[in-house]
Amino acid sequence: MKYLHTMVRVTDLDKSLDFYRDKLGLEELKRHDSPGGRFTLVYLAAPGDESAQLELTYNWDPEEYTGGRNFGHLAYAVDDIYALCQKLMDAGITINRPPRDGHMAFVRSPDGISVELLQAGESLPAQEPWASMESVGEW
Amino acid sequence: MKYLHTMVRVTDLDKSLDFYRDKLGLEELKRHDSPGGRFTLVYLAAPGDESAQLELTYNWDPEEYTGGRNFGHLAYAVDDIYALCQKLMDAGITINRPPRDGHMAFVRSPDGISVELLQAGESLPAQEPWASMESVGEW
Repeated sequence: MKYLHTMVRVTDLDKSLDFYRDKLGLEELKRHDSPGGRFTLVYLAAPGDESAQLELTYNWDPEEYTGGRNFGHLAYAVDDIYALCQKLMDAGITINRPPRDGHMAFVRSPDGISVELLQAGESLPAQEPWASMESVGEW
Repeated sequence: MKYLHTMVRVTDLDKSLDFYRDKLGLEELKRHDSPGGRFTLVYLAAPGDESAQLELTYNWDPEEYTGGRNFGHLAYAVDDIYALCQKLMDAGITINRPPRDGHMAFVRSPDGISVELLQAGESLPAQEPWASMESVGEW
């Protein structure tokens, strides 16, 4: 038995790839267009960790997606949580839970999927502007 | 960067462990009780694939969890999709999407989290009772 992927639905594939791939740093591994089924699947994964994937399902016919409380979040270990959060913040993404402790942060995808970022290895020393940054909303 | 886990919230920890661990076959790796935060975290993974985990969050104060369409499902490869679906069905779990093609099935957790089961390697030959079994509900 083996974990393959978590699938999330996305309303806008470009915006989602901008978030998950270009900003968060996941790699696009493969893409499948189904003109018959009117959907596109895109598989992403952390570089070097290709066996644990994130599947984006984009249905060509518009649908609004809302969240539910039974799903919590996706979690990734990252090399430098401050550098990544700075990159995300510079790109206009809200850091819902800033990495005040040099250890943990939360952001949300364009469709409200909560993503937990955890510093790989030891936590980084507490550092401004993160240490005194307030949380925003829920995550 | 590395995938760590997907977190789902559960209303009943015993029922959820019965589903994810005892029936689906994931292994319990660790458990963390937080009397202060009034929650319990349980980490599960497929045997031999411990680095890609499922985190169950059980909040001690009752809350009803509903689903949202932005989350799709968790997917696992399994050694024998017929044997596992038979085991699940015998235990009273609805096979929402039976493995008619010897390749893919869907079930739901007690909190409505959709779980995709995919036959590892080549699909199995089509076989009754699966080949003619109707789908039930959504998944």
